[in-house]
Amino acid sequence: MKQLDLMKELHVSSDKKIVMLILDGLGGLPGPGGKTELQAARTPNMDKLCRDSIVGLSTAVAPGITPGSGPGHLGLFGYDPFECQIGRGVLEALGIGLDLKPGSLAARGNFCTIDPETGVITDRRAGRIPTEKCAELVEKLAVITLEGVKITIRPVKDYRFVLIFEGKGLEEGLTETDPLRTGEKPLPVEPLNPAAKKSADLFNAWIAKAFQLLRNERPANACTLRGIAKDPGLPSYEEVYGLKSCAIATYPMYKGLSRLVGMDVLDAGDTIATEIATLKAGWNRYDFFFFHVKKTDSAGEDGNFDAKVKVIEETDAVIPEIMALKPDVLIITGDHSTPATLKGHSWHELPILLHAPDIRIDQVSSFDEIACMQGGLGHIRHVDIMPLAMAHTDRLNKYGA
Amino acid sequence: MKQLDLMKELHVSSDKKIVMLILDGLGGLPGPGGKTELQAARTPNMDKLCRDSIVGLSTAVAPGITPGSGPGHLGLFGYDPFECQIGRGVLEALGIGLDLKPGSLAARGNFCTIDPETGVITDRRAGRIPTEKCAELVEKLAVITLEGVKITIRPVKDYRFVLIFEGKGLEEGLTETDPLRTGEKPLPVEPLNPAAKKSADLFNAWIAKAFQLLRNERPANACTLRGIAKDPGLPSYEEVYGLKSCAIATYPMYKGLSRLVGMDVLDAGDTIATEIATLKAGWNRYDFFFFHVKKTDSAGEDGNFDAKVKVIEETDAVIPEIMALKPDVLIITGDHSTPATLKGHSWHELPILLHAPDIRIDQVSSFDEIACMQGGLGHIRHVDIMPLAMAHTDRLNKYGA
Repeated sequence: MKQLDLMKELHVSSDKKIVMLILDGLGGLPGPGGKTELQAARTPNMDKLCRDSIVGLSTAVAPGITPGSGPGHLGLFGYDPFECQIGRGVLEALGIGLDLKPGSLAARGNFCTIDPETGVITDRRAGRIPTEKCAELVEKLAVITLEGVKITIRPVKDYRFVLIFEGKGLEEGLTETDPLRTGEKPLPVEPLNPAAKKSADLFNAWIAKAFQLLRNERPANACTLRGIAKDPGLPSYEEVYGLKSCAIATYPMYKGLSRLVGMDVLDAGDTIATEIATLKAGWNRYDFFFFHVKKTDSAGEDGNFDAKVKVIEETDAVIPEIMALKPDVLIITGDHSTPATLKGHSWHELPILLHAPDIRIDQVSSFDEIACMQGGLGHIRHVDIMPLAMAHTDRLNKYGA
Repeated sequence: MKQLDLMKELHVSSDKKIVMLILDGLGGLPGPGGKTELQAARTPNMDKLCRDSIVGLSTAVAPGITPGSGPGHLGLFGYDPFECQIGRGVLEALGIGLDLKPGSLAARGNFCTIDPETGVITDRRAGRIPTEKCAELVEKLAVITLEGVKITIRPVKDYRFVLIFEGKGLEEGLTETDPLRTGEKPLPVEPLNPAAKKSADLFNAWIAKAFQLLRNERPANACTLRGIAKDPGLPSYEEVYGLKSCAIATYPMYKGLSRLVGMDVLDAGDTIATEIATLKAGWNRYDFFFFHVKKTDSAGEDGNFDAKVKVIEETDAVIPEIMALKPDVLIITGDHSTPATLKGHSWHELPILLHAPDIRIDQVSSFDEIACMQGGLGHIRHVDIMPLAMAHTDRLNKYGA
């Protein structure tokens, strides 16, 4: 965590304001018309801003690596996604808006099918049961109690659920029970260190009770647990950067990720319009605004090129409202690419725009993946973004004499 | 120190010569006329060279990080500025031309004001007393003796001085005495390891005597000590690169930094003209020439755009004399940016030019911050420069079979 230590050591206070506008899954690939989503979108405001900014391409995690939402955002926030890892259980909990108390353990659960005779798994996802069925099964399992532990269980989507244990003496370092292939039995939870023994016993006790309750169900007559983890205890934005920071986001996952780094999560409604209203209302109270637009990613995941173009255009339309607030630094990029042609997250670099004082304006006049190849920022990494934002708001002391 | 180890392992000898021309604080930002200092300067020789070179932009330390002279030059010399740190006391000593014997400890001293009643610091810089007053107080403190230690004390500038202890058994790992805020008493020097106990005692004994001698002075009736450190013992240029190297510089700081990596420091006079004469006179004796031009930085620090332009033009004018010597590799860059508009060091990348055999000449024909965005070197880091210089003089064996 060298960079975080450096930021902690060098930062000073300032009253300059930073807006980080993240269009989730922004980066794209040429669609049917030969243009990327950003090229196809009519974005007069981004292009105007571009002529007065420095742009480039940013790698979310590492070349060729497709990030999930966790690593994608950790990088944007300046936390090395390889050093700072967030357990799968924690991410699932954040994704449905559950708060994790320090010390609690969260696991991602998968309903699965086992052969009642042999006990081996025949379908790791129980035929991808619908979410309603998942909710019904979760309700059945909610009756399980264990001494000294407060248990929370919630459905997520399809065959997935979240299981949280809250109590004293719970420790990380637990193996997963999914053998990751069919034809094998679910594994027991094993402690990877002596301190985690008690937690392993508790999870195994819970699993035994769950299997009893599920034994007559079909196809979901068992379950596995993965990624059992605590809140990673990341240092806060206040601590690392000295920034009073807030998150303006519409989806639980991004609110949860922001909370992990100590941002205040503002009530931002459901639309870009309500998010903008939230930005304006909170303007005087914060130094740093993480502004998250979700639907570029959703459209990309759906393979809906035109819908993604439309969300980009909607976002472009509110840029004058952001600029009217006179942020000292405005960054526009995404957490990862989600090209509609790939219907999923991808490893491709993100176009990034930095509008700030003391920049060297480059010659790029269109904000898209191809034009940004010629940008003055060159090719950077997501973790480089926050130090630049800090420098351009006069928040970093000199390193060394 | 992976890169240094690699250089040690791979280097072979060659009689090809490398000139590294460093314009201190070279990088700039657009000034009143919309051009950077380099763009505004008339630099026919650099531009001519540029058409026959490969150029790019180089980050001194890391994105967003503004380096002091120490880290900026360590990077140029190929030493990772995060791994190789030079104590503040050592830098101050080098800055006024003092040589540090191996094993000696150097501290930066600050005269300060304390409340005679309570002992708390009321002004950490003693009202920024003039250098003459500082010299007078230093003379007063020069009478202090301690058994087994040779003490050297010298004024630096304003309220700052340097204190060096030379003797046996002196060890690093000592805390600073400046509480970094007013209203608190100076702290004692504490050893951070058992071996440093004796050194801590010696510094504390010196401080007690110094406070006695200063007690009737106003406003400087006390002092604090910071950055107590030894010469970091960096491996030499000879060892790392197999290069017979020399430094041609006019200011003590840069001579001192060069000496830390084992360069011979030549007597280079006070002007670019005397530096050029020194380069010519030493040409047959060395493989590597660190040629340092100071006044680009001084002008930038003064916020004097035109003066910085003038120093760039003066340097440009001597390039034909350098080229007449037929260096195999000529590198032109800076240790960090010092934009006149910011009146200080900054984090912005440095334009860099590499003129060498076996390069791929790019399409850039003007040596400045904006044109170099399109250069063939792309965006590199200072620590990448020396390996390139080594490669282009046929000094590096193949890595691996």
